[in-house]
Amino acid sequence: MRVAFQGERGAYSEEAIIQHFGPNVEPVAMPYLRDVFESVEDGGADLGLVPVENTLEGSIVRTFDLLNEMTLKAQGETVLRVVHCLIANHGVSIGDIRKVYSHPQALGQCRKYIEENGLEAVAAYDTAGSAKMLKEQGSRDSAAIASSRAAEVYKMAVLAQGIETHAENYTRFLIIGSEESAPTSADKTSIAFIVDHRPGTLHSALKAFSENGINLTKIESRPQEGTPWEYIFFIDVEGHREHPEMRLALEELERNSRYVKILGSYPQAPR
Amino acid sequence: MRVAFQGERGAYSEEAIIQHFGPNVEPVAMPYLRDVFESVEDGGADLGLVPVENTLEGSIVRTFDLLNEMTLKAQGETVLRVVHCLIANHGVSIGDIRKVYSHPQALGQCRKYIEENGLEAVAAYDTAGSAKMLKEQGSRDSAAIASSRAAEVYKMAVLAQGIETHAENYTRFLIIGSEESAPTSADKTSIAFIVDHRPGTLHSALKAFSENGINLTKIESRPQEGTPWEYIFFIDVEGHREHPEMRLALEELERNSRYVKILGSYPQAPR
Repeated sequence: MRVAFQGERGAYSEEAIIQHFGPNVEPVAMPYLRDVFESVEDGGADLGLVPVENTLEGSIVRTFDLLNEMTLKAQGETVLRVVHCLIANHGVSIGDIRKVYSHPQALGQCRKYIEENGLEAVAAYDTAGSAKMLKEQGSRDSAAIASSRAAEVYKMAVLAQGIETHAENYTRFLIIGSEESAPTSADKTSIAFIVDHRPGTLHSALKAFSENGINLTKIESRPQEGTPWEYIFFIDVEGHREHPEMRLALEELERNSRYVKILGSYPQAPR
Repeated sequence: MRVAFQGERGAYSEEAIIQHFGPNVEPVAMPYLRDVFESVEDGGADLGLVPVENTLEGSIVRTFDLLNEMTLKAQGETVLRVVHCLIANHGVSIGDIRKVYSHPQALGQCRKYIEENGLEAVAAYDTAGSAKMLKEQGSRDSAAIASSRAAEVYKMAVLAQGIETHAENYTRFLIIGSEESAPTSADKTSIAFIVDHRPGTLHSALKAFSENGINLTKIESRPQEGTPWEYIFFIDVEGHREHPEMRLALEELERNSRYVKILGSYPQAPR
């Protein structure tokens, strides 16, 4: 099975694919998030895996926009514990390292480790891309901060693991495909909707779920393209769209909204 | 007056400072967002300006976390139309350019222009930082995508202006300081709150505003550090915290929430 993701080989998204689908999956690297959706639509990949939220950095709003725009459905969810590794070429020891390259977010998350080891932090545009660059240059005095998967892909050494200051660093991903998921014992449904810009309209829309005993797990308001500061709402609620209470809630949401799109129902990732 | 911002000199935040405060302000560049807050707290700067939301990229969640954590108040709001410029050293003409450096988001926003002109896009960690680098290198075959302010700061030439594909690219900033703003004819209030994780709790919390005729302009749920996927909500509502209806709404919100913090009331930016 081919699963598309955005980024360089060895990105955290690739690690999430292996975690979710096992070692026999074939991850397919794509430069842009939109390419992930398009490769699944045109059959170049069977499924896609896209990030929706990170506990330290927040929502990946481009994913929500694309889910709303495209016809693919969210059909699964997986949560990756982000473990940052210090990666260098084989034979380089930790005492040789002077500079450390990575995405500014990863550098920020590992600031304490970098300072304690007297390293110079150098911002790059990508975590896995930094490892790839050091490999190509054959560097002997620099390291990258990236996933352990990046070390595997580029045949490099992991000098230290778990160097982030806060351990509570998780990224949630959705699996996207052309088919919907059947109900299980613990599902979630992701929904996009627009209400009129008047006092109480969002409150009325959420009443649909509250009255039917459905728990909301996430809400996000997002400016609509073309009409800045007019918002579309993205919510996650507990339950499958085919459940009777959910059907009632969705009917009421439709009555209270200008626009509703169900982005998909899928089994909840284990906590 | 000294106003701190995060980024290199010439960043879009610096442009927003000039737009809001006029030409006599002194922008102060800081490497991290936290430094902006700390420099205002310790008197190194009079005020800070921090980004909260971009129409294409979504919320800047680190800002919300810091507003919640620190004691400073939001006391103003300004909206900047982001206009991307192609910037090169003086004497370089558009036909000389082979490569264009910028932050991946800016490159993505200008993808059409880059392709039509047959340029090679090179990802860097910062927009203004790319211009600075080309200046230092004295490059004759490369350009950066950054603000017109960056061209001014680094004494470079603007070869093209407004090269983004979508014109609807706005960033909203808050002005932070130690004092609160007095009520005006059109204010907003930003609030952080936490409710229990049960069906209907968010709905009940929002009822406070709905019943008092107060319009909600933004909502965002954000995982709390240390308890992943337990959420803190950040909302913006129309009106000043000293208005009688707002006082009633805030009292009711307190009754329905485990935690409430008012981040500030401030004059709305003109639309």
